[in-house]
This record gives sequence, structure tokens and C-alpha cells, in this order.
Amino acid sequence: MVTDSDTSPSGYVRPVIDVQALAGLLDGEYADIRGLVRKNLTAYAGVLDEAEELGFDAFRERVREVVVEMAATGQTGMGFPEEYGGGGDVGASIAAFETLAFGDLSVLVKVGVQFGLFGGAILQLGTERHHKAHLPRLITGELMGCFAMTETGHGSNVQALSTLATYDAEAGEFVITTGTDQARKDYIGNAARHAELAVVFAQLEVGGEQRGVHAFVVPVRVGGEVAPGVRIEDDGRKMGLNGVDNGRIWFDGVRVPREALLNRFADVTPEGVYQSPIDNPDRRFFTMLGTLVQGRVSVAGGAINASKVALAIATKYAVRRRQFTAASDTDEQVLLDYGMHQRRLFPLLARTYALHFAQDVVRTQLHEVFSAADGDERARRELEARAAGTKALGTWHATRTIQECREACGGAGYLAVNRFAALKADSDVFATFEGDNHVLLQLVAKGLLTHHASEFESMDQLGMVRYVTNLAVETVIEKTSAHKLLERVRDLLPGGDEWDQEAGLLDSEYHLAMLRFREEHMLAGVARRLKRGMDRKTHPGVVFSEVQDHVIAVAHAHVERLVLEAFVDKVGQVPDGDNKVALGLLCDLFALSTIEADRAWFMEHGRLTVQRSKAIRREVTDLCRKIRPLATDLVDAWNIPREMLRSPDLVG
Amino acid sequence: MVTDSDTSPSGYVRPVIDVQALAGLLDGEYADIRGLVRKNLTAYAGVLDEAEELGFDAFRERVREVVVEMAATGQTGMGFPEEYGGGGDVGASIAAFETLAFGDLSVLVKVGVQFGLFGGAILQLGTERHHKAHLPRLITGELMGCFAMTETGHGSNVQALSTLATYDAEAGEFVITTGTDQARKDYIGNAARHAELAVVFAQLEVGGEQRGVHAFVVPVRVGGEVAPGVRIEDDGRKMGLNGVDNGRIWFDGVRVPREALLNRFADVTPEGVYQSPIDNPDRRFFTMLGTLVQGRVSVAGGAINASKVALAIATKYAVRRRQFTAASDTDEQVLLDYGMHQRRLFPLLARTYALHFAQDVVRTQLHEVFSAADGDERARRELEARAAGTKALGTWHATRTIQECREACGGAGYLAVNRFAALKADSDVFATFEGDNHVLLQLVAKGLLTHHASEFESMDQLGMVRYVTNLAVETVIEKTSAHKLLERVRDLLPGGDEWDQEAGLLDSEYHLAMLRFREEHMLAGVARRLKRGMDRKTHPGVVFSEVQDHVIAVAHAHVERLVLEAFVDKVGQVPDGDNKVALGLLCDLFALSTIEADRAWFMEHGRLTVQRSKAIRREVTDLCRKIRPLATDLVDAWNIPREMLRSPDLVG
Repeated sequence: MVTDSDTSPSGYVRPVIDVQALAGLLDGEYADIRGLVRKNLTAYAGVLDEAEELGFDAFRERVREVVVEMAATGQTGMGFPEEYGGGGDVGASIAAFETLAFGDLSVLVKVGVQFGLFGGAILQLGTERHHKAHLPRLITGELMGCFAMTETGHGSNVQALSTLATYDAEAGEFVITTGTDQARKDYIGNAARHAELAVVFAQLEVGGEQRGVHAFVVPVRVGGEVAPGVRIEDDGRKMGLNGVDNGRIWFDGVRVPREALLNRFADVTPEGVYQSPIDNPDRRFFTMLGTLVQGRVSVAGGAINASKVALAIATKYAVRRRQFTAASDTDEQVLLDYGMHQRRLFPLLARTYALHFAQDVVRTQLHEVFSAADGDERARRELEARAAGTKALGTWHATRTIQECREACGGAGYLAVNRFAALKADSDVFATFEGDNHVLLQLVAKGLLTHHASEFESMDQLGMVRYVTNLAVETVIEKTSAHKLLERVRDLLPGGDEWDQEAGLLDSEYHLAMLRFREEHMLAGVARRLKRGMDRKTHPGVVFSEVQDHVIAVAHAHVERLVLEAFVDKVGQVPDGDNKVALGLLCDLFALSTIEADRAWFMEHGRLTVQRSKAIRREVTDLCRKIRPLATDLVDAWNIPREMLRSPDLVG
Repeated sequence: MVTDSDTSPSGYVRPVIDVQALAGLLDGEYADIRGLVRKNLTAYAGVLDEAEELGFDAFRERVREVVVEMAATGQTGMGFPEEYGGGGDVGASIAAFETLAFGDLSVLVKVGVQFGLFGGAILQLGTERHHKAHLPRLITGELMGCFAMTETGHGSNVQALSTLATYDAEAGEFVITTGTDQARKDYIGNAARHAELAVVFAQLEVGGEQRGVHAFVVPVRVGGEVAPGVRIEDDGRKMGLNGVDNGRIWFDGVRVPREALLNRFADVTPEGVYQSPIDNPDRRFFTMLGTLVQGRVSVAGGAINASKVALAIATKYAVRRRQFTAASDTDEQVLLDYGMHQRRLFPLLARTYALHFAQDVVRTQLHEVFSAADGDERARRELEARAAGTKALGTWHATRTIQECREACGGAGYLAVNRFAALKADSDVFATFEGDNHVLLQLVAKGLLTHHASEFESMDQLGMVRYVTNLAVETVIEKTSAHKLLERVRDLLPGGDEWDQEAGLLDSEYHLAMLRFREEHMLAGVARRLKRGMDRKTHPGVVFSEVQDHVIAVAHAHVERLVLEAFVDKVGQVPDGDNKVALGLLCDLFALSTIEADRAWFMEHGRLTVQRSKAIRREVTDLCRKIRPLATDLVDAWNIPREMLRSPDLVG
């Protein structure tokens, strides 16, 4: 084998991983619910074959069936109050969802639609009357529903939706109307076949006055037939997730009672007086939206676990598959002993571990915020930003990892039985739904520029530029001045002004300092460029367009820093021993391969000499070599049920 | 619109593109055959829907039907001699294949399997008896065949195939035998259903002596039934290309007459004497393989054109789709006016143009080499290297471009009707078949290190390391010494030793000098590292594993330089005028975004200052802004039939 020996001249001793202990560490406090989901996945393993074998319609019905049967085990209702038959544990509901992502992703997404989006909207935006009426039956899956927010014309800019809900005080009813085809609800999961109820987001008009977007419970099917005034069209075949019945909905003056308004944050009296505890309409809308943050947290966790499936298959294949003689004159060499193959897979493996621990942090924050009696505004906004950022990085990571792993399995990776076909097609839309990744990163950047001083999603770029340039730039510039930045770093690292040259390459404080420096320096740069643009009296939209890639880069840098912090923190908490050593290698590899990928920026900003940049590349290669003999254990610790990997000829 | 005005302070005047003239330039000398293919694509546009609507089996039959009907138009037989009913024009056959990639890719790949791989093997490896017996019927599609090279155990290392062909002198027959399951033929297109004949690659044994891999014509079906001694299994569903019937084949002592050996490069006399004009068995095998190079050239062209389809849809969508207010307080802004959106799409657009012109060069070389009466060895090897490199870069480009374009179309991009589902799934395996991209780039690097002094595919890495370190390193090091390198650059560019600081950022000579410098510097580095490893007496396989990513990087750099040269040459040939200006912008964008992407390397190697690196980033952004108003014309010039874009709601 072309790998390091067990001990090396540098004193490094190859750790022996305790796989079960590592698996326990990864499952964390949610081992029980994850165990239940693994059991269910194994019981329903046949759905992976059925996804290929059943026809379009039959597979949709099968997925519905599986979802309802899984619901009966309690797996999917963890996030709902116990009084309605739920588990009363938000964190556990996310953990369950994450684990479900080892299996068929249509099942995952249908669970997300039914219990996360539809159920979540009823729970978070509704009040007791809605809870009593709908939660018990939706938790069992008896009542299927859909979440009708996105329209053909508006996906990212949901504040500009154009479905109308007009209050008719005489009848005590709202009248829901789709105007043009651009206003039809589109891509709505559960709409084409299974939903009886829809939570419809529409512009509320009361007494001739526009009140912004609100949510209404609207029956779209009665006794299996599409309700009068409602028109539904199938979105048809999609790239993947064909077990989910996405569709379009038009409303032609559909009347619902006044009580159909999900009235936690705003209500209309029978007489037609609009009332809300939140005066500012923007703030009101984005407070509503904010309660739905768990959708993003769920997708992030699902994407990270889908990456694990791909990496597990590719790693297990690469330790069995031989091609070409190399280190021996007679035997062909296993793929994973090739330096390039290690370089392709191991940074992705390390990043998957990093994102796993980052996801732990988001899930914990979510659990705390949603379990608290009263909402801490700041905590909510930080959660929203972190959820958005982790979702963006986690889903892009999945796309990239699945692709690399498919290619690393060659022609075999192209056969459907070997899992990549479904993984790739089904997870592709993760980068888009629950918030387009680029839009989410813009929101993250906005939070950084405004210190989370405004609602998370409350401004488009125009508002953002104005807000930032009027209020926040001076503070940002002051806070992130190179001088102060370096001062803070100096406190953390030895070496004074030379910290970035003298710190050890494997020192986590060095890694963190580098990522912090990058983030803050970029942030200051964006603030300055926005201000300069406004000072020139350029139209804010033009200013924004010019700075947009910089804005997105700063958010990306911010989230990567959070991910590294989560990983470093976790390694710090692990008791001394071989598992800690192994996680330390992965953490170093994640940090250094992240710096390596952006080493041009660090050189451009004086934080990396040419020599050190090259040294980092060598160190990454060296870490890959150290991880080589640990690779199988590292993927086994994810404890993915064997049945979920399929790939009979690939993984043995 | 947030774009440049028609003229700018720098004197730049926005060109007005003559779309038809540009389309003519792109089609080049093969406008006629491309026109025929476009006509056929439009006539069979329904196949894009049928790919979704028909079941697994029915779609395979439909694709066969379409291929046979297209064959009747002469489109698919251009590469065969006229005397057998072909068109006698190799270049035209590639151009036809490229154009076919605008449509359904199962049709494309089935054409490739039948006429390129199967037909190509009969033509190139066989002699008159095979041509007479098979070409007329295979050109019409009446006789379907398959190309049975890859085995389950060996895809990249084809010299190590283990199917056996033993000569039985008494019977005057070869006996074809699959030993273990690892030796079964696998992923073979046309095998599961349609092939009557197979060209089988097997280790030839004559009189107890091993003669290496040779090709035999073996009937696998007779009258529609699988032939005796042959077992065929369906590979089942794949990620994409499900209109092609891939399968596995086992041979259990199947006997074929002596004449079944494709005997252009080697023969066996009735008495069992092995004869070949090429003494060296390696050289013989790789000469045979080399004649099949057009498969790679075809895939490269197909991948580049598949990218065009994705970019055309994403561009047309982005000039219509509005989201968020930005430059106006009331109207939402079209996506393509966002800086980030331009940054996402335009470097890919520029690279697609660059690859188009690079493909022109490969196609022309192929045509010349295969139309020449006698083979110029050196020209053949250069063609093989160029084909391999263009295939690798072109297919990776397709994967990346299709993904970015899908994401840029949001949720709409996920619907099958909008084309990305099929594009993505069908083109995914392009990076693997006709040579795994990483393996191909290693071969390219080997050619550079050995000055194409040995067979193109004739050595695995072990042999390569030995060969290189024994013979070639000194020459490479001498040839690529930094001193000589800079001397040569100095002749091209003003500025003396400061050329890399003083040249204009939009000077093509500067771009070329940068890419040449990178390539030669990397090449020298690889040679030195290989030599150092051998001097240390490290096992060559270990040395190779350590250097492998560097080896692949040098090949990548080499091919990018060739691509840029092709683009610069082309722009130089275009008559003065607005089209030349527009192509010049794209060429600059390709060059600078390529340098930008690798700017860390240029900084590490002293060829880019921090200031200049930042200036390049600004220039890329500026070029994107200049291309914005030209974007629609630039994709229209590809002349993709409207029906091939589908996407009724996206492209208008």
C-alpha cells in the first residue's frame, strides 16, 4: 500500500478508530430517534428499487404509503406538541429528518412537505383553533396538505407574491384569487395528487387596504375531487424526486371563512378591522417567515447526510477496486492508494464531518429558540442567518460530493443500482428550494452588514444598499479595520505581527485566525465599496450589481468560519484518545483545504507568502495520506444501513 | 438595464453582432451536413418527450428506430468509404455527430455505439473481407453491433483485459471464453437488446503463446435470439441514456472462424502462425487503439454542444425573468442584469466558444490524419493527445455548465420539460466513457514528458515513471528551464523581464505567454520531482502516487493553452468588424477568467503581483458587463433548433 507507515519520523502514530464510539459521538443526544429511523429505512429499503421499477403514478402512491406508515412509528411527528400526538422535541424532529436522508429522497421530501412545510405552517402561523382542527390528523398523515407559497412569477422574492385574498365583511369570508398565470402557485409538493388542504400565501386586502402577504388554510380537494373554484395542474416529470407530486394551483374567487386566516401574527375582525401585534408590515411578514426556519435546517442536514451516502460508496469501492500496476510490479493498485484519488475524496470527507458538526450547532440553536417560552429576537436572527448559510454550503457540498463520487466510481457509478443516479437527480434541487443558495447568502451578508439589526429577509438588495450605506457602514468599517483585526488575532496567536508566518500549520488557532481575518476583511471591503458607490450618487441597484459577487463571497467566508469553529469546538470536547486524533486530522484537513482553495485571496491580502502557500498544499497532501488507512472506519462511523448503499458489486 | 452604455469613456463601442454571419463562421466548412442534422433533429423532436413518456423498453426501441431512420438520410454514415455507401468524409462525420448533440443524447450515443465504435472498429481494425461483409448493412443500421471492450474488472487498463481467444488450428477457429465474472464484458451499448454482432477484445493465445489483446467479430444474436454459448444480461437502468441498451456479455467457449479476427494489424495463418507487421506487442495494441481516436473526438464535440443547449436556455431565461427591484424602484430587475448572474454564466459562455474552436482544430487534424494515404506517426500521436485532452476538458465543462445553468433557472430548471434533467443525467457519463478523464490527462502528460516518443497509451504509470526518469527528464528540464522559458516569452512580448507586469491585460500575447509559462514550468516541476523520487530509490509507483495531481495539473494546463491558441488564432482570422470585436471580448474573457481561476499558481510562481491579480478580477467583471447586451446574440449564433430547447415557459 502506498500510504504512511503506522508511525512516521515526525512522531505521528496512526490512530486506531473505535468506530462504535465515533458513531455514538456523531449521533449525539438523538441516538434513539436516529436508531428508529435507521430501522424504518431498513424495513422500507425496497423503496429504492421501487423508485426505478414503479411507474410515475404508482411510485407517487407508494411514497405516500411509506410516509404514512413511517408516521405511525412516531418518526415524523417529533416536532409537534405532545397534546396533539407529536413528540414535543424540535431537535429530535430535525435529527429524524437528517437520518431519513440516507434513504430515498422522495420519501424525505414528502415528509418535509407534509410535516415540515404544511404542518409547520399550521403549527407556527396558526392558533389553537387551527391546531385542534388539523394537527392530530396531519401528524398521522391522514390529512395531507401542501404549502402554497411559491408562484410561477415569484420564488425568491416572496414578498411580491400576487395571489390576492380579499376580505368580504358581509359574508365574513376571504376570497382567494389567482390573477395572471404568473400568480399561479407552482412547484407545490403534494399539490398534484394528495393535498386536501393548502396553506396559501396571498396578499391580504381588507377594506380596500393592502396588508401584505398572509397565510390561509384553503381546501383544495374535497373527497378526493378538486374543490370548486380551484384548478390544479401537474408539474409533470422532474429531474428527480418523482415520488413527490408537485403541481400548480389556480384559485378563482375561492371563498374561505374568516377563521381560515392563520392568525398568530395578525387577524381580521368579523367587521373587517385588521389587527396585529406587529405594526410594521415588513417586520410582520418576516416574523411569520422566520418561524418556518426549520425547513432550511432540515434541508441542510438532509444534504449533508446524502453526501455521506455518496462518500461511503465511493470510499468502499476505492479500497476494493484495482486498476493499473503501480507500487507493485504484478498486482494492480487499489484506487484509494493513488494520490489523486485521495485528493479527490478526502477533502470532501473532511468537509462532510465539518458540516455535520456545524449542523449540530444549528439544530441545537433551533431547538433552543423554538423550545423557549419567549423569543429572543437576536437569537432568532442569528439562527436564521446560520440556517441559511449552512443550507447553502451544505447543499452545494452535496451536489459537488455526489458528482465527484460518481466519477470516482467510473462506469459502475452510472448504473442506477449503484445509487448515484437517484442521489444526484433527487438532491439537485436542494440548492434551490427552501431559498435559492445565492439569495440566502445575500441575506447572510446583510445580517453581517447590519449586525442583524433588521428583519432577516426584510430587504431586497435595493433596501439593503440604502440601509447599509445610511446606517451601518461606519460601524462595519470601524469594527473590521485591518488594525483592529490584527490586534484581535494577535491576542490569540503567538508571533505578534508575524502570526500568519510563524504559527504552526496544524494549529487550529491559526486556521481560525485566517478564516476570521478573511471574513472581516471582506466585510470591510464590501461596506467600503457600497459606501463609495452611494457617495458617487450611483443608483443603489447599480452599486449592488457591481458588488454582488463580493457580497456573496463575504457570506461564504462567514459561514465557512462558523463551520470551522464548530469542528474545532467539537474536537476540543472529545476525550483524549485515538478518535480525537482522527477527528483532529479531519479538522486540520478541512481547515487547510479550505485555506488552500482560497489561497489566492490570502496571498492577495498579505496573509500568505508564496512559501507558506506551497507548504499548505504539501500539508494537505500529507494529511490525505494519513487519512488513507482510516477512511473505511471514518465512513463506517456514519452508520448508514447497508441496504441504503445498494451497490451490490461496488461495496462488497 | 444595469449594463454599459453603447460607448464608454475608454472608447469601447458596443458591437452589433451579425448573428447569421457568426453562425456561418461557427458551422464552418460543414454547414451542409450540420444543416441536414438540424433538419433531422427538428423532424424527430418528439423523441425528447418520448424519453420521458415511453417506458424503459419502448424508449429503447424508439431510439433504435430514430437512429435507423436518420441513417437513411446519410447523416450517420459520413465517415465510411463511399464504395460501401458511406460519405467518405471523416470530418463531416464528426461535425454531424457534434450537431446531433443538440438533441436527445440517447440517440447521439446509440449513433456513436453503432457507427463510431462498432462500425469504426470494423473499418479501422478489419480488412476488405470484413468491410465487404459488414459495412453496407451496418451503415444502414440494418446490422446492429456492439463494441465489447470494457470488462467489469477492467475499464481504464484495457491492456489487462482477461477474456481469452485461443486459436484451435485443427478447426481453424478461435475459441472465445470469459473466465471469471470480472472478465465479463460490461456497460456495452447495444448489447442488451439490439446487437447481432460484437467486436470482442480478447487476449489472443496461439500455440500456447500470449499475443496480447486483439479484436474479433463474434455473432451474439442469431435471428434475434442470443447465440449459443453467449450469455447476455441487461445492465438495467442507468442515470441517463436509457434509450441505449447497455449490457453484459459472457462467452462460454464460443467458436468463430479464423477470418473473424480483425486482421489489419495482425493475423493468424490457418496453421496457427501469428504474423504482424508490428513487432512490439505494446506498440501493436496501441496502434490498434489509436485508430479508434475518433470516438474521443466525437464525445468532446458532443459535450461542447450539450453545454450550448444549457447556456442557451439559461441565457434566454435570464433576459426575461425578473426578481427583486434593484436598479429601478418599481420594476423588478432581469436576472442577467445582476453582476453575480453575469459572473456565473459568461465565463462559461466564453469557455464554450473557446472549446468550440479548439474542437475545430482537433476535427481538422483528425480529418487530415485519417484522410492521408500513409500515417505520419508524430501527427497521429499529437492528434491522440489533443483528442484526449479536449475530451477531458470538454466533458467536465459540460457537467459544470449544465449544473450552473440548471441552478440559474431555479425551480423551473428542475422540471423535465425544461431540458436540464435529461441534459444532466445523459451527459454525466461523458467524463467516464471513451476514457476516464483523469486517465486521459495522465496520458496527455506522458506525451509531454516523452515528447510523444512512445505509443500514446502504451504505458501505465509505472512504465511512465521509469521511462521518463530514464530518458526524458534531462531534456524536459533543459527545454523548460525558467531561463529559456522567459527568453522565449521575451521575444513575444514587450517589456523585457517585466513582460508579465507591463503587458496590457487585454493583449492576447500576454494571455498566451502566461499559459505557456504555466505549462512549461509545471512540466519542468513534474520532471524534477519524478527524477528526485527515482534518485532516492523510491518505488516508481510511490513516486507516481506522490506526483499524480501535479501530473494531471500539467496536462490540464497544456490543454487550456491549446484551447486558448485555437481561440486566438480564430479571432485573428475573422475579418475586421463587429463580429470580430465580439469574439475578441469572449476570447479575452476566456483567457482572463482562466488566469483568474489559477491566479494562486501565478502568484506562487512570481508571474502575478497582488495588484495585477486584483486588476484581472476587475477586468473579468468588466468584460462580463460588456458581454451582457450581446449575450442573446451569442447563444443564437449556435443555431440550436428551437424545438431542441423545449422549455416553453422559459425561453419564450
